[in-house]
Amino acid sequence: MKVFRSPEKLSIAINRIKQNKKRVGFVPTMGALHAGHLSLIKQAVKENNTVVVSIFVNPAQFGPQEDLKKYPRLLKMDLALCRQAGVDFIFLPENKIMYPRGYSTFVNVEGLSEVLCGSSRPGHFRGVATVVAKLFNIVRPDVLYLGQKDAQQAVIIARMIKDLNFPVKVKVLPTVRGNDGVALSSRNAYLSDKEREDAVVLSKALLLAQSLIDNGQRHADRIINRMKELISKKRSARIDYAAVVDLENLMPLKKIKPGCLIALAVKIGKTRLIDNIIIREGSGKWGQNYFSKIKIGKK
Amino acid sequence: MKVFRSPEKLSIAINRIKQNKKRVGFVPTMGALHAGHLSLIKQAVKENNTVVVSIFVNPAQFGPQEDLKKYPRLLKMDLALCRQAGVDFIFLPENKIMYPRGYSTFVNVEGLSEVLCGSSRPGHFRGVATVVAKLFNIVRPDVLYLGQKDAQQAVIIARMIKDLNFPVKVKVLPTVRGNDGVALSSRNAYLSDKEREDAVVLSKALLLAQSLIDNGQRHADRIINRMKELISKKRSARIDYAAVVDLENLMPLKKIKPGCLIALAVKIGKTRLIDNIIIREGSGKWGQNYFSKIKIGKK
Repeated sequence: MKVFRSPEKLSIAINRIKQNKKRVGFVPTMGALHAGHLSLIKQAVKENNTVVVSIFVNPAQFGPQEDLKKYPRLLKMDLALCRQAGVDFIFLPENKIMYPRGYSTFVNVEGLSEVLCGSSRPGHFRGVATVVAKLFNIVRPDVLYLGQKDAQQAVIIARMIKDLNFPVKVKVLPTVRGNDGVALSSRNAYLSDKEREDAVVLSKALLLAQSLIDNGQRHADRIINRMKELISKKRSARIDYAAVVDLENLMPLKKIKPGCLIALAVKIGKTRLIDNIIIREGSGKWGQNYFSKIKIGKK
Repeated sequence: MKVFRSPEKLSIAINRIKQNKKRVGFVPTMGALHAGHLSLIKQAVKENNTVVVSIFVNPAQFGPQEDLKKYPRLLKMDLALCRQAGVDFIFLPENKIMYPRGYSTFVNVEGLSEVLCGSSRPGHFRGVATVVAKLFNIVRPDVLYLGQKDAQQAVIIARMIKDLNFPVKVKVLPTVRGNDGVALSSRNAYLSDKEREDAVVLSKALLLAQSLIDNGQRHADRIINRMKELISKKRSARIDYAAVVDLENLMPLKKIKPGCLIALAVKIGKTRLIDNIIIREGSGKWGQNYFSKIKIGKK
């Protein structure tokens, strides 16, 4: 496994690989790797000749009041996990390499970036789209691996790939959960033991939504109300949003239909957590990979 | 010469070329080709194995009150000129292929896009940066050829290339002029005979600026005033801006220095024309290619 801090040197190494017609798989991360990341990395290792993992806590996607400084950084452990999983290249750039003095170019996916998490985190998805565009040009991946937990992010990146004609295919893999049902997230590290117990309410609310749907409920507002009711019972919980939206355009839906995304953002104490399920035809279970059915990106 | 209307098919053809390690030169145009475009194309043919010319009147860079509809379209002549010049591939996409329903991603180079032409053409450079990013991903050029007449555009594209890590090198070639000194532009076709005579005042004003500088004048405001004075003598002329700016950040300069851009935008009747010179050390003449001295983009 080779660690690159220089975009130029990584590009040279990638060029060599591409000239041999090798497939490059890419997993962009902010480090503090958990089993969710590892499921993406393992899939990438299985399906590609060369796998690149980037570890970069991207300042452009944090708001001024957000947790950029305290975001967990566990580089040694991250590198060990990547090595063990069979990663070929690590990209580990510094902030000033990615955003040097005079930096001024931003990629924005309009509309999709302003709803759900975008409305409480203005500029967040602009930062995500920008860094991913930069990473695409450095890594030139054939396939990009993303987790369903960040569903809005996946929808936005898929839209950017299509709109800007990036020759990248996207795979979105199921959310990985703890035994208690909590979706894995590097931010779970912020939770106290009591808060971790309360955090279970997000997945419980989504399971409730799923069972209401399985029992015939199709009214989005009733499902949303039942989820909010459940979450509100936890004193540490403050709901940012609970929404039923179309997975392609993220617009609110009145009626449940296949391909709809049920998404939550809830603050547990000071920690903002997100989770979601995607409803497809037939009975549901965790991690339905609806994404694989929509054509996003291309090769 | 092959004409492609499909981005996918062009990408496949380019991939084949790239795998043979051939150099791809790219000249993006809006058609209505003149000797300025041809100088770029000829240079590209000289320096690359494969040359791609795109012909696309990009709606995203026209304001609602601007000349999108009446912009000159001379496809047959354009194709003949390209064939004669030795172009390999023409990319000729339709609007709905470039901007299909649901299109939502835009690239913006902040700061640089809001000054000079940007202040009277809001959104223009966002449209330019966006379409060029798309074209880069389709054509994957090694070298991009631009004309100095659109100096601000060249500065913005060079900044985007650097910021978003596009592996593209930029060459900016000198402005080509008519015998009367008027910078070639597809929009010159809008001018009446009388207006064409008046349009000479842009290049005259820049020559005046150059001679003032050659004679020791270093105060930007005095040079600007003398240029404005000269232009105002033409009754058909309405000055949009006359500016002395730093070529790298496009910020106004008080004192002339090497690497400064003297730029004009003037409406002659209803036709908005632009022109510029770049001042470098030593005595000046038309078309000093200062751009070649700044490192922009990379390979």
